[in-house]
Amino acid sequence: MDIFKNLKNSVIVFDGAMGTMLQMKGLKTGECPEYYNITHPDIVYEIHKSYIDAGADVIETNTFGANRIKLKSYNLSDKLPEIVKSAVHIARKAAGDKAVALSIGPIGELMEPFGKLTFDEAYSAFAEVAVEGEKAGADLVLIETMSDILEAKAAILAVKENTNLKVICTMTFQEDGRTLMGTDPVTAIISLQGLGLDAIGVNCSTGPDMMADIVKKMSEVARIPILAQPNAGMPHLKDGKTFYNVSPEQFASQSKELLECGASIVGGCCGTTPEFIKLLKAEIHGTEKESIVKKYTAVSSNTKTVFIGGNNPICVIGERINPTGKRKLSDAIKDGNFNILFDEASSQENLGANVLDINIGVPGIDEEKLMPYVVSQIQNIVNLPLQIDSSNVKAIEKAVRIVRGKPIINSVSAKEKSLKEVLPIVKKYGTSVIGLTISDEGLPKNEEERLKNAEKIVKTAFDYGIPKEDIIIDCIALTVSSEQTAAIETLKAIKLVKSELGVNTIIGLSNISYGLPERYLINTAFLAMAASYGLDAVIVNPNDKITMDILNASMVLTSRDLRCERYIQTYKKDDKIGNIPNVTIEDKLKKDASQIL
Amino acid sequence: MDIFKNLKNSVIVFDGAMGTMLQMKGLKTGECPEYYNITHPDIVYEIHKSYIDAGADVIETNTFGANRIKLKSYNLSDKLPEIVKSAVHIARKAAGDKAVALSIGPIGELMEPFGKLTFDEAYSAFAEVAVEGEKAGADLVLIETMSDILEAKAAILAVKENTNLKVICTMTFQEDGRTLMGTDPVTAIISLQGLGLDAIGVNCSTGPDMMADIVKKMSEVARIPILAQPNAGMPHLKDGKTFYNVSPEQFASQSKELLECGASIVGGCCGTTPEFIKLLKAEIHGTEKESIVKKYTAVSSNTKTVFIGGNNPICVIGERINPTGKRKLSDAIKDGNFNILFDEASSQENLGANVLDINIGVPGIDEEKLMPYVVSQIQNIVNLPLQIDSSNVKAIEKAVRIVRGKPIINSVSAKEKSLKEVLPIVKKYGTSVIGLTISDEGLPKNEEERLKNAEKIVKTAFDYGIPKEDIIIDCIALTVSSEQTAAIETLKAIKLVKSELGVNTIIGLSNISYGLPERYLINTAFLAMAASYGLDAVIVNPNDKITMDILNASMVLTSRDLRCERYIQTYKKDDKIGNIPNVTIEDKLKKDASQIL
Ligand SMILES: [Zn+2]
Ligand SMILES: [Zn+2]
Ligand SMILES: [Zn+2]
Repeated sequence: MDIFKNLKNSVIVFDGAMGTMLQMKGLKTGECPEYYNITHPDIVYEIHKSYIDAGADVIETNTFGANRIKLKSYNLSDKLPEIVKSAVHIARKAAGDKAVALSIGPIGELMEPFGKLTFDEAYSAFAEVAVEGEKAGADLVLIETMSDILEAKAAILAVKENTNLKVICTMTFQEDGRTLMGTDPVTAIISLQGLGLDAIGVNCSTGPDMMADIVKKMSEVARIPILAQPNAGMPHLKDGKTFYNVSPEQFASQSKELLECGASIVGGCCGTTPEFIKLLKAEIHGTEKESIVKKYTAVSSNTKTVFIGGNNPICVIGERINPTGKRKLSDAIKDGNFNILFDEASSQENLGANVLDINIGVPGIDEEKLMPYVVSQIQNIVNLPLQIDSSNVKAIEKAVRIVRGKPIINSVSAKEKSLKEVLPIVKKYGTSVIGLTISDEGLPKNEEERLKNAEKIVKTAFDYGIPKEDIIIDCIALTVSSEQTAAIETLKAIKLVKSELGVNTIIGLSNISYGLPERYLINTAFLAMAASYGLDAVIVNPNDKITMDILNASMVLTSRDLRCERYIQTYKKDDKIGNIPNVTIEDKLKKDASQIL
Repeated sequence: MDIFKNLKNSVIVFDGAMGTMLQMKGLKTGECPEYYNITHPDIVYEIHKSYIDAGADVIETNTFGANRIKLKSYNLSDKLPEIVKSAVHIARKAAGDKAVALSIGPIGELMEPFGKLTFDEAYSAFAEVAVEGEKAGADLVLIETMSDILEAKAAILAVKENTNLKVICTMTFQEDGRTLMGTDPVTAIISLQGLGLDAIGVNCSTGPDMMADIVKKMSEVARIPILAQPNAGMPHLKDGKTFYNVSPEQFASQSKELLECGASIVGGCCGTTPEFIKLLKAEIHGTEKESIVKKYTAVSSNTKTVFIGGNNPICVIGERINPTGKRKLSDAIKDGNFNILFDEASSQENLGANVLDINIGVPGIDEEKLMPYVVSQIQNIVNLPLQIDSSNVKAIEKAVRIVRGKPIINSVSAKEKSLKEVLPIVKKYGTSVIGLTISDEGLPKNEEERLKNAEKIVKTAFDYGIPKEDIIIDCIALTVSSEQTAAIETLKAIKLVKSELGVNTIIGLSNISYGLPERYLINTAFLAMAASYGLDAVIVNPNDKITMDILNASMVLTSRDLRCERYIQTYKKDDKIGNIPNVTIEDKLKKDASQIL
């Protein structure tokens, strides 16, 4: 059963709360709600049936906490397969011709570095539930109430890699508009939607009125349908019981507004009952949605989305974590002494980098093992999206897999082997990728060859289902001291590739000035020139102050700094460029940890 | 009689020496050769007749030293009109159907600053000779044996403004390839050919073999026919008499090579006799010349030509001699305290300026008087071509008139009044001019309006007979903080104007960064961008080191510094940019002064 088939013509209604209903039907504090699938299948059936009768198109199995790790606290880990099987069967029986979504909630422990749960442990736990759910006959999977995009990613990959089920994922936000781990709604969408999800959204969190803002923000960037499942308002405790402050009527009319804000699937979370769903269904009956394709390029870290292209600032990709030609860095990497890398990461962030390139390519190291380690460490140190830079495709995949956010892969080329090896990873993990305009024929001679190579990359990527917004074309700046006319060919190619293919462009500055004195002057002049030809991103040393200064000025001149605001801000106060205060995730964690655990 | 009418089909032969012949016929040292026109008309006639008989197409009157100032040493000033009248009549009688050229040699005193002779004194003396010569029936004027391009300019203007005669001007070079005043052959051509000359060239100096190099250099830039009149080799003194070491036969065959080097008019100077001219005439009989139009933009000082456009370095025009917005400079100009200007001139030259803009526009000063003064002083201090920058058209003309070299006028616009007032000056003095792309409709809004205004300037200039090579279009950089998208329009206009009109382009950097902090960053970034769109010249503060550094790098990237040679030279040795040793004209003057006086 494909619930998405008809989505273009009519919105979908999910059911409401399971936990609230179980409590109403006798579930005590301290009892395992999912064990009811075995001990009280009739009660669970009744709840499902009442949502179906209220008009829900999809009901969610009573498996929110059903994973081996969480069940351990009830000593029920071994019952996991049975609990899931029973849950699906009960829902299936109640659903009739409606759909059954296998509910998958968070593991219940924080992942590294916030807690001790590893990616692989989470992945295994999620995979087990998904496999059991598919076996038992679930129609789709709803990964819900997620606070950590990496945990969500582990769940999504577990479902996708182990079942053929469609997948929806919803995140939960706090009153400050971020998840407990610090992720904002836009960053959540950017980080997750490319992983092969069929819909994405928000649940729990707030009542429907306060959820509108989150849905609106998501809607600006979502390329897949949005599911919104608000609570019945905010909870109050009264006489030891939890009450919610939104009536079924209010819920129904406010939820309709969520559709106007961009959701196309709605339902209820905590505090909602079949009455809520019945009124909601009546309220939105016959609403149609048209989907608008959003064209933009973005990458993300855990807490931040960086948009690339258009009138966005030229994206500064810090190049310093790269041992090529650096003896000291090479030795440190060989010796497993990564502090020097971590210092570089932090320093580049402070100097205004928007993204960090991570290259640890030293002969003789186990890059497949080290790259994921270095990447996971660096993403704990800085708040920047990362660019995974390696010639080892397996190392790239292993790192991309555990990035908390949407990374850039550096790079694919127009060579057959590269296209075949790299593009599947780009597609699977929904990353961006740098497309190097070199081919099996070698370096491009002029703007036309650069265009031809770029076109091959874009077309092949399209065949893999990769949108061209995720490709950033590197028009390759050759060494000017040996190929003097090549610089202008690169510039012209930037303009040509953008206008012909509609993709973003990037250059690396390390090559062009090779062999000349005062290399930063050549790099800086070329960067200003490239900016005026439409360059969108640059791989650069953010420690070259003049280069960064001229880049800032270039953005004023190319309307990438509207009303010169950033420029004036930067230079009036004589601040360090782009000096960004560190987001205090750990402070936040201390404050809020009790709420979720 | 127009000797140039048939020049396309056959070369012209001038006569040989007069002085040598007079000495052979009895002229004693200390006697005034020109007085022979009155005292020995028969001898002068005989000489002329012998040259006509030898085949000369043009004979030169015996008036080389006939000017009021030089004749004073013989107490013959008052005889000037009679001497000239007689000289022309004698030549006329001998010439038959051949042409008579009124010979005008140097005044015989050095002009300021090398001597005390003023421009106006020289001008008056030349004008008197020219007027008398025309009255007496000369067919054209030959200004010859000039060492000072300003003296030549005074002579040319005197002839052009007071007679209707065609004019040729020849300069005399020393063994080092420069005139006594330091002018090289290319600079002589650039400085003088635009003044309305019908031919230009070299006389005296050397024998025909050593003159080939000078003629070749002249030929590379000359847009008018070249006259070459070598001596009969180098002079030796033997037994108190002067002998020349080239035989008539050698002279004839070597002079033929001068035609191959680019001359189309030949003749003889010191030591040549009718025998030389007879053999020369026979040798070159039937030689045809085709004229090639030379396309380039160049301006000059006394000692230096600066080429603009193509792959030449982007021309750095120093902007600092300009009181706009500078209180201290304004006050100094008002007080007549110009040392601060002169220091700026020298400092900008040392910092790498190629041309200096001179603007003394302070309300209340007598700019028509002061501009020529300041210009003449500054051209004595620096070796750079000058750019005369004023809104007072009369001040521009008065300054342009006395510049020793070919200046740039800053500026004409596409406004009717400006075109009508400025272009006649550009034409008359053969200057270059900056064409500001503003019109009676105001500032241009986009690249198309800039092109339209540029087109109007170029077309109107063409109607005045001004070649487009002498127009440098300013695509106007507006203030980016108030018109943010204007910067890119200016850049696009640079490319468009060059490709559509084939003219050179310039921008001033003072405006674009107005109102922003760290203005040099905006200026520098824009300059690099403009360089990549094909900019040929920039009005800039050469004291902004970063701007100059990035400009140097930009020239590497745009192939305006072939093989990066200047860049490597500049930055490897850590020299000051473009630090040019001062040409020691005064040292040279001390050494050589006796030779000409
Ligand atoms: Zn909830
Ligand atoms: Zn819920
Ligand atoms: Zn001579």
